[in-house]
Amino acid sequence: MKIVKEREKLKKDYLGIVHTQYFTFAEPSHPLQLKSGRSIGPVTIAYETYGKLNADKSNAILVCHALSGDAHAAGLSPDDKTPGWWDDLIGPGKALDTRQYFVICSNVIGGCKGSTGPSSVNPETGKPYALDFPMITIADMVEAERYLIDHLGIEKLLCVIGGSMGGMQTLQWASAYPDRILAAIPIATALKHSPQQIAFNEVIRQSIMADSAWRKGDYYEYGQPEKGLAVARMIGHITFMSDQSMEEKFSRKLKNDNLSFQFTDDFEVEGYLRYRGYNFVKRFDANSYLYITKALDYFDLSGNYFIPDVKKTSVRFLVISFKSDWLYPSYQSQDIVRALKRKHAYTTYFDLISTYGHDAFLIEIEDETRLVKNFLAHIHQH
Amino acid sequence: MKIVKEREKLKKDYLGIVHTQYFTFAEPSHPLQLKSGRSIGPVTIAYETYGKLNADKSNAILVCHALSGDAHAAGLSPDDKTPGWWDDLIGPGKALDTRQYFVICSNVIGGCKGSTGPSSVNPETGKPYALDFPMITIADMVEAERYLIDHLGIEKLLCVIGGSMGGMQTLQWASAYPDRILAAIPIATALKHSPQQIAFNEVIRQSIMADSAWRKGDYYEYGQPEKGLAVARMIGHITFMSDQSMEEKFSRKLKNDNLSFQFTDDFEVEGYLRYRGYNFVKRFDANSYLYITKALDYFDLSGNYFIPDVKKTSVRFLVISFKSDWLYPSYQSQDIVRALKRKHAYTTYFDLISTYGHDAFLIEIEDETRLVKNFLAHIHQH
Repeated sequence: MKIVKEREKLKKDYLGIVHTQYFTFAEPSHPLQLKSGRSIGPVTIAYETYGKLNADKSNAILVCHALSGDAHAAGLSPDDKTPGWWDDLIGPGKALDTRQYFVICSNVIGGCKGSTGPSSVNPETGKPYALDFPMITIADMVEAERYLIDHLGIEKLLCVIGGSMGGMQTLQWASAYPDRILAAIPIATALKHSPQQIAFNEVIRQSIMADSAWRKGDYYEYGQPEKGLAVARMIGHITFMSDQSMEEKFSRKLKNDNLSFQFTDDFEVEGYLRYRGYNFVKRFDANSYLYITKALDYFDLSGNYFIPDVKKTSVRFLVISFKSDWLYPSYQSQDIVRALKRKHAYTTYFDLISTYGHDAFLIEIEDETRLVKNFLAHIHQH
Repeated sequence: MKIVKEREKLKKDYLGIVHTQYFTFAEPSHPLQLKSGRSIGPVTIAYETYGKLNADKSNAILVCHALSGDAHAAGLSPDDKTPGWWDDLIGPGKALDTRQYFVICSNVIGGCKGSTGPSSVNPETGKPYALDFPMITIADMVEAERYLIDHLGIEKLLCVIGGSMGGMQTLQWASAYPDRILAAIPIATALKHSPQQIAFNEVIRQSIMADSAWRKGDYYEYGQPEKGLAVARMIGHITFMSDQSMEEKFSRKLKNDNLSFQFTDDFEVEGYLRYRGYNFVKRFDANSYLYITKALDYFDLSGNYFIPDVKKTSVRFLVISFKSDWLYPSYQSQDIVRALKRKHAYTTYFDLISTYGHDAFLIEIEDETRLVKNFLAHIHQH
């Protein structure tokens, strides 16, 4: 309630319209080196910022997005006034309080929301890269973010935070650049994809590639492989929700009075999936879905790869998972915590009660706000 | 161990080659009335039997198969000597001991393994029914089985048993014909599909229908919608296994020494899914997959529909679920048990420890054998 009231008070002070900015680096003479051994350049990064960078540049927080996210994390978009995907968490008085912090969010490379990805024009051919785009890893995404942070003149980030794939980037930051961040908040994520997670992503990819309209990735002049991409996204949506949240939201409610005895969407849950699937086609590039799911599957910071030098650093961790999340189950966050404890890293862990499944990291705002706010206040004082 | 030794002893006495038989009924003048209001005739049922029907016809057990199963439950097929899908459970000395019992298994209507289904020739057109085939429900499948049981001259079945969709048929038998069965063993099943179960089936259907080779169901002269059906089956396979069994079987093992940085199957789990998906295309009709998944989703014996007259009957129930089964979670079997207890039905319930997920009902043979054998011995004595 206290949070709600405080937000009410700050309504006039909300972020308002936020314009996406662009930063281009890695000219072909100095391309971005990728983990695959290939390189790419130039690279453009779409990003947004909220709040003001302070004089000693010590109040910057990097927010990393999930699979289908973008740089628009907060405020309203100029065109259709859409709020950012984590607007409930970022703004004046919110968990990432823009009166105190300078918050940055960028679109990952390989994506399709302004950053360079498979739908971008390949300067060598004048046509979209399509499958000529090099394979991208989570480490490559973080490397591009590091260029952006350099560009903004920030030596040390106060915090990196993100859920799901955003959590992987957070862990990768802590692993690759422990001396450039003070704190890390990985949420609903994993040190590595399990075979079940790989399996879901593989089926998602197969669904896209099974669509004859995919044309081995060269569909840009014809339009998206709509059906395959829609099915891919429907699979995703099942994994984002929990059995219980689906029961609460849909149960066996019918769209019409009676069963159709036809191959139509009889149940509300079917209509929901079809809607979400086909809506996704309008806003996300099929090839980007392929590249980013592969980056997720390749990610593996388990074993000795993870934060080898944490003892030498002061990175502090807040790890959060959700009990009903079966896509990134709590045991995976507990694996992160165990790995951190083995390195004697300062780690706080919460396994939050929620029925929302993996989506919880976008929904359970009050709990996240409480935890993140206190954690950041503590870090900022140090 | 005792079971293993006993099996060893009986090796010479195994079922050997079993030939599928066919029974045709419901001539067009007296078609099979379906729950949709439509009717169909003639109807052919493919079935197999194991063991001998005794003189008073009191030793018959009906085995009901799951989504992609068939009548070949035990023994070896004449062509390629493939053992039946539940061969470990049916035969001399096994749980369904063919020295004692007469075991029957038939292919469901709507299927594609010898019983009338969408790939069967429509006598009115001389072409496959395709989507002109009427929608089938679990109750319709059971009605066709009832015709077969009548044909075999069996007044009362000793037991109906089945896992997954076979469990639904088992429950439907108890509900529709409580005076024609003595016992029912529903395994890893549910009184109704949850929205999550409907959602997976809807995505499976969408995947098939998204394939342009599906041609609105009229693909029979061109060949199966291979890619869509393969993806559909891959989705299924993920839901049949558990997170843990996938970890034990595949972990993150690579097919080759290194990551490919291509859209190929890097991980063993990916190769497994592709293999299972494309293998399925050779053996199962895509339209049958559509019809049968819809029958699963329509099934609902919850509320007052379930066994209204159980008090007046002596049907005895053995309900079995598996702890790692997340496709038909244990709570759904517990809902069955609660519904039965409310009706004061004689009910025994076991929630078995297994890591195999939904597949457990095909794998956890020793536990099932112990439970089923004792239960049947008890019933048979009565």
